[in-house]
Amino acid sequence: MRDVAIVAAGMTPFGELWQWSLRDLFGAAALEALRHARTDHLDAIYVGNMSGGQFVGQEHLGPLMADQLGMAGVPATRVESACASGGAALRAAFLEVASGMSDLVLAAGVEKMNDGADVTSVLASAADQESEVYHGVTFPGLYALIARAHMETHGTTLEDLAVVSVKNHRHGAHNPKAQFRQEVTVDQVMSSALVADPLRLLHCSPVSDGAAAVLLCPLGRAKEFTDRPVKIRASGMATSAMALADRRDPAFLDAVSVAGGRAYTMAGLGPADIDVAEVHDCFTIAELCVLEALCFTERGRAGEATRAGETTLGGRIPVNTSGGLKAKGHPVGATGIAQVIEIFEQLRGEAGERQVPDAAVGLAQNMGGSGASAVVHIFERV
Amino acid sequence: MRDVAIVAAGMTPFGELWQWSLRDLFGAAALEALRHARTDHLDAIYVGNMSGGQFVGQEHLGPLMADQLGMAGVPATRVESACASGGAALRAAFLEVASGMSDLVLAAGVEKMNDGADVTSVLASAADQESEVYHGVTFPGLYALIARAHMETHGTTLEDLAVVSVKNHRHGAHNPKAQFRQEVTVDQVMSSALVADPLRLLHCSPVSDGAAAVLLCPLGRAKEFTDRPVKIRASGMATSAMALADRRDPAFLDAVSVAGGRAYTMAGLGPADIDVAEVHDCFTIAELCVLEALCFTERGRAGEATRAGETTLGGRIPVNTSGGLKAKGHPVGATGIAQVIEIFEQLRGEAGERQVPDAAVGLAQNMGGSGASAVVHIFERV
Repeated sequence: MRDVAIVAAGMTPFGELWQWSLRDLFGAAALEALRHARTDHLDAIYVGNMSGGQFVGQEHLGPLMADQLGMAGVPATRVESACASGGAALRAAFLEVASGMSDLVLAAGVEKMNDGADVTSVLASAADQESEVYHGVTFPGLYALIARAHMETHGTTLEDLAVVSVKNHRHGAHNPKAQFRQEVTVDQVMSSALVADPLRLLHCSPVSDGAAAVLLCPLGRAKEFTDRPVKIRASGMATSAMALADRRDPAFLDAVSVAGGRAYTMAGLGPADIDVAEVHDCFTIAELCVLEALCFTERGRAGEATRAGETTLGGRIPVNTSGGLKAKGHPVGATGIAQVIEIFEQLRGEAGERQVPDAAVGLAQNMGGSGASAVVHIFERV
Repeated sequence: MRDVAIVAAGMTPFGELWQWSLRDLFGAAALEALRHARTDHLDAIYVGNMSGGQFVGQEHLGPLMADQLGMAGVPATRVESACASGGAALRAAFLEVASGMSDLVLAAGVEKMNDGADVTSVLASAADQESEVYHGVTFPGLYALIARAHMETHGTTLEDLAVVSVKNHRHGAHNPKAQFRQEVTVDQVMSSALVADPLRLLHCSPVSDGAAAVLLCPLGRAKEFTDRPVKIRASGMATSAMALADRRDPAFLDAVSVAGGRAYTMAGLGPADIDVAEVHDCFTIAELCVLEALCFTERGRAGEATRAGETTLGGRIPVNTSGGLKAKGHPVGATGIAQVIEIFEQLRGEAGERQVPDAAVGLAQNMGGSGASAVVHIFERV
């Protein structure tokens, strides 16, 4: 396999962007990446998107988006793995470059969620339709079950969960692309409206529109496009039982653990080597479960570590310096690429007030549904 | 890039399979392929599917299908390119094996169309929502426009179109998996109900349920799984303008031409080297346009060649020996893989009454929407 680098990135703001259509969002992010790399050539495009069909009546995003860039002709494929669609698109682009088939490949993610669709129902189609959705479960409901299980098994408290939200809002306040740039307090989180007990509004990531794109090429060609490429050191992917009820321990994310293990093995690195991480905090409890599955903390100790400030900027392992899904926003198909962009900027020293000093190795973890699919990438400054 | 082979295949019958759910269909095809290869191990799974979300309320098919096989854990990703989703899934699996990332990769396609959804509306989401669908165009309408343009420019006749249907039904009569196994006459085609002038019912492929799966591995390991592997000699993909109105010539399929050219170049072969081909005859006119775009006939001469019997079993270049989408059925996400299975069986000498004598090189061409995305693969007996 050839070594692969990311050489440029582009991203829209995340938020309720009523004036931007699905293709507008994609085009803005993709063209920004191409502009940074000073190229108008692509060999292939991958578009991560969860549900253009259900959200805005548009499938077949590959050719639509190639056309939107004025690049009709270029091979272009949509990749879907629910909220891990962006991570899956990056992996597909990585394999295409690594294989030698193509040199310049765009990996993008896009979602237009605010356009009149019943968002909760559309998102529910990422769960098991026959054994979960037909019976009325929604995603806040599934993650509430995970939270209750984690609290029962490990003694995690409501305050532990609230601190995740407080930390990510504090980080997001420094991110000009974030949907929410205001800080929140533990009291505000704990008194916000109840969504699915024990999860309250400020435990939940928002409904967002947005797009993000990164440009990949063989590491050997990276200097043609930037003087600060970032190497993709590993790509790990895994699945687990689709339905929460079919898992050994609903409070442990098997797919994240396996995907992370594959990525650590491929990179020849371990959790202690990671300087900065973006993880999938669709709900506050998700961040805690991911920290444990990726071995950033011992099992059951992620709440305690978070309360102790280990995952905040300046802590032992800063997590979600972008603001995470919670504050930055969560346009589901775009999220996996936006995470990678935060790591890309951190490793290039471009993260401004969010910068982790001398960050050399970063990790991005993206997952679909209640964690049935997971993608983990490890990146390195070169 | 490593050489890649197909070593096993599995496929459900195609048809109105009311008693089979989306996951049942996938499971049956995938397990048949695994059984033929005498293995219960997979390194990765790609699922081609156009619209599980809109058809049956189920996205996130990667982990669902890995779970259905009892293989939760295995990386699994859905790939979508409308009716070319199957071809795109094969290409993704090919790249994963070629890259060296994985050895045993399943490429499958599945679609459950008969389950109460408004099929015509769902399929329309493969066209350009803003410039085509909002104004009321459906796929029979788009292909009717293509047919009219071809008739105007090249003198193609209604009888030329009817002969495509007659030929494919004749081939399909010998395919035990085909949705329609009865022959039809030119008169029957020309007097069937009008759908979108000039296209009548017997010019249109049906609404179908079905799944198909093939197992890929490095060519160097193929003999562990079969004594008759088939090498994937080339994979070409391309896009074109999404909307028909934006194309230079609506009767010429640019994406198919470019994808075919890429595949011929990669294989070091030309159209005269192909012994048998499966092409995307979602409507009779589509087969004629594809024959021209792949240079099997001169531009404008595909109708004449079809009437002269050049594309029938026993002719110069037998096309759609499976019965094609017209007679075999068209579960949109599964079609691209089912085409590959026909070529796999032809090159292994297993096609029974449909066998092309001594077929050594075959081609499968799959496209999405009105041809905005196209995938062409070339295969070789080894």
